[in-house]
Amino acid sequence: MSQKNKVRVAILGASGYTGAELVRILAHHPAVELTVLTADRKAGKPLADVFPHLAFLSTPPLQSIEQIDWAGADIDAVFCALPHGTTQKVVSGLLNGGGPKKGTRIFDLSADFRLRDGDTYKKWYGHAHEALGLQQRAVYGLTEHARAEIAKTDLVACPGCYPTAALLPLIPLLKEKLIEPADIIIDSKSGVSGAGRAEKEANLYSEVTEGMHPYGIANHRHAPEIEQELTGAAQWGVTVTFTPHLVPMSRGILSTKYVRLHGGATAVDLHDALSARYKGEPFVTVLPQGTAPSTRMVRGSNRCVMNVFADRVPDRAIVISAIDNLVKGAAGQAVQNMNVSFGFKETDGLQQEALFP
Amino acid sequence: MSQKNKVRVAILGASGYTGAELVRILAHHPAVELTVLTADRKAGKPLADVFPHLAFLSTPPLQSIEQIDWAGADIDAVFCALPHGTTQKVVSGLLNGGGPKKGTRIFDLSADFRLRDGDTYKKWYGHAHEALGLQQRAVYGLTEHARAEIAKTDLVACPGCYPTAALLPLIPLLKEKLIEPADIIIDSKSGVSGAGRAEKEANLYSEVTEGMHPYGIANHRHAPEIEQELTGAAQWGVTVTFTPHLVPMSRGILSTKYVRLHGGATAVDLHDALSARYKGEPFVTVLPQGTAPSTRMVRGSNRCVMNVFADRVPDRAIVISAIDNLVKGAAGQAVQNMNVSFGFKETDGLQQEALFP
Amino acid sequence: MSQKNKVRVAILGASGYTGAELVRILAHHPAVELTVLTADRKAGKPLADVFPHLAFLSTPPLQSIEQIDWAGADIDAVFCALPHGTTQKVVSGLLNGGGPKKGTRIFDLSADFRLRDGDTYKKWYGHAHEALGLQQRAVYGLTEHARAEIAKTDLVACPGCYPTAALLPLIPLLKEKLIEPADIIIDSKSGVSGAGRAEKEANLYSEVTEGMHPYGIANHRHAPEIEQELTGAAQWGVTVTFTPHLVPMSRGILSTKYVRLHGGATAVDLHDALSARYKGEPFVTVLPQGTAPSTRMVRGSNRCVMNVFADRVPDRAIVISAIDNLVKGAAGQAVQNMNVSFGFKETDGLQQEALFP
Amino acid sequence: MSQKNKVRVAILGASGYTGAELVRILAHHPAVELTVLTADRKAGKPLADVFPHLAFLSTPPLQSIEQIDWAGADIDAVFCALPHGTTQKVVSGLLNGGGPKKGTRIFDLSADFRLRDGDTYKKWYGHAHEALGLQQRAVYGLTEHARAEIAKTDLVACPGCYPTAALLPLIPLLKEKLIEPADIIIDSKSGVSGAGRAEKEANLYSEVTEGMHPYGIANHRHAPEIEQELTGAAQWGVTVTFTPHLVPMSRGILSTKYVRLHGGATAVDLHDALSARYKGEPFVTVLPQGTAPSTRMVRGSNRCVMNVFADRVPDRAIVISAIDNLVKGAAGQAVQNMNVSFGFKETDGLQQEALFP
Repeated sequence: MSQKNKVRVAILGASGYTGAELVRILAHHPAVELTVLTADRKAGKPLADVFPHLAFLSTPPLQSIEQIDWAGADIDAVFCALPHGTTQKVVSGLLNGGGPKKGTRIFDLSADFRLRDGDTYKKWYGHAHEALGLQQRAVYGLTEHARAEIAKTDLVACPGCYPTAALLPLIPLLKEKLIEPADIIIDSKSGVSGAGRAEKEANLYSEVTEGMHPYGIANHRHAPEIEQELTGAAQWGVTVTFTPHLVPMSRGILSTKYVRLHGGATAVDLHDALSARYKGEPFVTVLPQGTAPSTRMVRGSNRCVMNVFADRVPDRAIVISAIDNLVKGAAGQAVQNMNVSFGFKETDGLQQEALFP
Repeated sequence: MSQKNKVRVAILGASGYTGAELVRILAHHPAVELTVLTADRKAGKPLADVFPHLAFLSTPPLQSIEQIDWAGADIDAVFCALPHGTTQKVVSGLLNGGGPKKGTRIFDLSADFRLRDGDTYKKWYGHAHEALGLQQRAVYGLTEHARAEIAKTDLVACPGCYPTAALLPLIPLLKEKLIEPADIIIDSKSGVSGAGRAEKEANLYSEVTEGMHPYGIANHRHAPEIEQELTGAAQWGVTVTFTPHLVPMSRGILSTKYVRLHGGATAVDLHDALSARYKGEPFVTVLPQGTAPSTRMVRGSNRCVMNVFADRVPDRAIVISAIDNLVKGAAGQAVQNMNVSFGFKETDGLQQEALFP
Repeated sequence: MSQKNKVRVAILGASGYTGAELVRILAHHPAVELTVLTADRKAGKPLADVFPHLAFLSTPPLQSIEQIDWAGADIDAVFCALPHGTTQKVVSGLLNGGGPKKGTRIFDLSADFRLRDGDTYKKWYGHAHEALGLQQRAVYGLTEHARAEIAKTDLVACPGCYPTAALLPLIPLLKEKLIEPADIIIDSKSGVSGAGRAEKEANLYSEVTEGMHPYGIANHRHAPEIEQELTGAAQWGVTVTFTPHLVPMSRGILSTKYVRLHGGATAVDLHDALSARYKGEPFVTVLPQGTAPSTRMVRGSNRCVMNVFADRVPDRAIVISAIDNLVKGAAGQAVQNMNVSFGFKETDGLQQEALFP
Repeated sequence: MSQKNKVRVAILGASGYTGAELVRILAHHPAVELTVLTADRKAGKPLADVFPHLAFLSTPPLQSIEQIDWAGADIDAVFCALPHGTTQKVVSGLLNGGGPKKGTRIFDLSADFRLRDGDTYKKWYGHAHEALGLQQRAVYGLTEHARAEIAKTDLVACPGCYPTAALLPLIPLLKEKLIEPADIIIDSKSGVSGAGRAEKEANLYSEVTEGMHPYGIANHRHAPEIEQELTGAAQWGVTVTFTPHLVPMSRGILSTKYVRLHGGATAVDLHDALSARYKGEPFVTVLPQGTAPSTRMVRGSNRCVMNVFADRVPDRAIVISAIDNLVKGAAGQAVQNMNVSFGFKETDGLQQEALFP
């Protein structure tokens, strides 16, 4: 760390939405000094051109990864918000002496280090993983369920947005054997920022506004990630039904889960179990019974809200959660992981309330 | 009918969104003469004040129901777009000599005549039905499944928006015994116009935009309506899991259904069965395999699009449909039923393509 | 024309929003046979892939312009919805024997033939015009002000969306000498579809939703087009203040104009003059005094609504108009011009009411 | 102040959008203790029911104004976010011994104390002011232009949202005699939250989305407020042309001003003057020449961004500014005024960056 006792941070990929959120959050973090920002196509531009809403911060210039003066920058933590595929090469280079000093901790927001099994990666991403060893060394950083491991590793694979929303309620329910692992349906609805800032016809305003549709039906890359973690929790090979939908809003994921109750459990039992599990957690809130989660409760905040509802169908319950995909589903959780990693207060930099209306 | 051989139509409740859609459609219907429009609180105002986008049509003035000169108006068909509860009294009056001439046909868009069982009505609506006999005489007007009955009755209960989207694909699948009646999950997403034009805080622009949430979880009044019709199709008492969600868009319902396959059926079998059932239907389209239904395909049109997707979970499939809640889910289907009732071409007045972008 | 006495139409550039609107409108036109559709990058694809909402129409396949069999197609009218620059080459080719039969009429929706002065074109578009002669032969197709000329020409330059909204009220006011030509301020607000379907970061949903901004301030290419026509109307060299703004909506232009009254005229005089000028026009409506124009009055329709308001500043008035940029501002007006050109009823194919909500 | 040296704050009217923003901001203010919250119709409810996004804060319960135990509460500052008309009675009571201790400072967000002239108030609000003396004692709290007065008064009338956006650039330009006071046109565009949380048909989601329109044309109550302050700056009786528009977004005001240059000034001169005037201001930013202000730059932040553009019309310039109507246009500026009043750092509690996307 620097003389001022601040963590010196590099953000690789600061010109995407996740990168912008990292800047927004870290610029006000009491223990962080934003030292390096990279952007590939937009290297050389001031951040104000790329993200006018961040023009009022004092930030380092955008450069390319190749231009980083690692020795001079003296980086303690790297946030990696690069496309999958690219990431494994970059991170591999960083950890193998091609970049920051030894001991630098990496918080990766791509999908590259989330799947522990190389074959699963290959099947879903269409090519062999190029840094298989690192993949196994990485810690899956669903903060509330991995604090001890996060504190010890130098490579945290931050979970995807859909997985974060789904796993936070499902993992405790499976661990407590309150629901059947063989009958889990996840119907997820996401804002458009989840698709990133790439120039795609499908994400143009006029294509998206005032309509909604499913996509990646039974075929989305977040499914194996969810299954890996649920399988771990259930100690049983879980296959989920998972359907993401695109909603005409910028931020937010609402995740509606249909579960079969196990061993005579009731919806109230599930609510009690989740309440007990997350008691005292600063960023996970089990709502009072009857209150429906809504993405507006968490827009711009690092919170996950959740609740459980009795179904009219016997032996079934409906478990609903909501997050901001760019915060708890990406940049916020990554910073939360950094806080754990460096022993800071876990809420540092993350205390912003939701913005409504 | 009038001398010009046109059906003379009254719309009761023309100041709501459904009423406006009836005006928009019927004003250009080749065989209809819009003769009477009522609006309770807004009686006396010109329609242009209530719906500026309809100011350019030549329409009768808004009056109260009490002010209708039934004898002079010589009405052949009444579209009833009134709140539930109110409707049963009004329709009861109309059919018992207190209104139009004998033989006038009523197309009711409220919930009042959809449930055949009085106890079910009482349970879900909180008060005894006041026109139980009519309730049993009414035909449930899901057009594609009730043409013969519609042609013979004078009281058509037009289905709700959520039921229309859910039933069109599910009824044939149950009738063909391709899916299990005991395991049907309906996750529905609706635009805000479904909540009507009432002045409620929850439906203000600033409350709704850029967020989404479930409501009426395991508790929505469209559930018993869906179950009544599915029970009829399955010949087995169906209870559904049904979760509606509010989406920041004005029009459209996307209905995602999770079903368990029966007797070794596959998703392709389901697709084939639906394709066969709806072949030649002007307003129901089974999309090519792999194409995801989207509400933008049907915005402003009377069409229902649907498709079936294989799930990764064995023995499961995902059935998705989309409609415009105000058209096929309300005003359009009501006009379609009128066309059937009077022997007109079923597409008369309903040939508008979806409006996109 | 074909044996069936229908105009055989080619749409060049059917994969953009304007092209899609042309298809939507012309597919139901009683006197049109859609014969050829082209799309450059998307040639070979079915229209259903490019515009799913049009999948239910029976349309010719998308081809490239080079693939058109002009002899076999026997085209009577060409709608040209291509980018500016490209257009002048294509149209030049068409009219010089490289395409359809002699006498085929061209309705161009690009900017290429709107400016009569070659130097002005060069100044605003950055390169010399490549078909200067055609540019002078083209008729500026603001339908209500050019019917006689449209009927006689084979090349109609359909006006831009901002100019259409601004010119319809301003031309009569200048001709009647009711306003000062030297003091005209046009503050325009447009939906995003005006920017087309090109894949640009600035038009992504997440960039646009819930925000608004001006662009092309004192520098937009529609300014010289507006000035050319106002100069013609005023017989005096008009320079306008013109500021376009991007609004988070898909369709619609609202045009607020600040004018200085001339010769003691009042806002009521202006209202009277516009009412007299547009009396009987099917697509231009001067609203009753006091009623504010709104884009929702015209969403999806070919109508222009307008009104005049007294300002509190003496000698000033506020003139406001609204259109749907894709209909009266593009495809609808082009079809209206075709109707004039071929002597059809001017409302043929264009009778759809606005879609609200 | 309390023992902890914190200002004890009451918010009257905490169930509206402005009240919610006050809670959001003040809950994290380092020198504030939120002590009393009132809400008329919703008294007795927990804040979580009224604003679910604020459920995670520890806040006092909602009560009615009558229920406040002023003696026990020991309030130092009152934020008054009540409807106009009501406010003058309440504030009059508070300052005349019917409420908090002597010396308590009031930051009023209504219109009641903004107009110094009783006749002007009566003319625009339709009834005589009931606390005329207070009206003249109140300081118009456009922070950057009234710090000294704010520090000395116990009643700050916080400016309206439209006036804040318009006055910040115009006041210096008039003071420096760079623009003509007789020719100022303000075309303003506002998000819907400016209309408050009242249950009005006009503000329903389905009424507002995907459309825009002007309202209160030459007749909006913010006009006299703007004119009062511009008249003071110009030392000349200013009448403005002012047209507000409703835009389909929740937050934000974009204010486009058309001005005539005075004494040979150029747009660059205006830019220079504004840059000099606001140099060092934490919440007012004059953007680099050529950069267009956008509401997304300030969504959720207390910043005002502005810029000046040369017009093509000689002697004219275009001055554009943007704010978040609920922050710099309401709650944020009120807190900024409190910071000035109590001698806190002016940015305390207000350092949140804009939320984008």
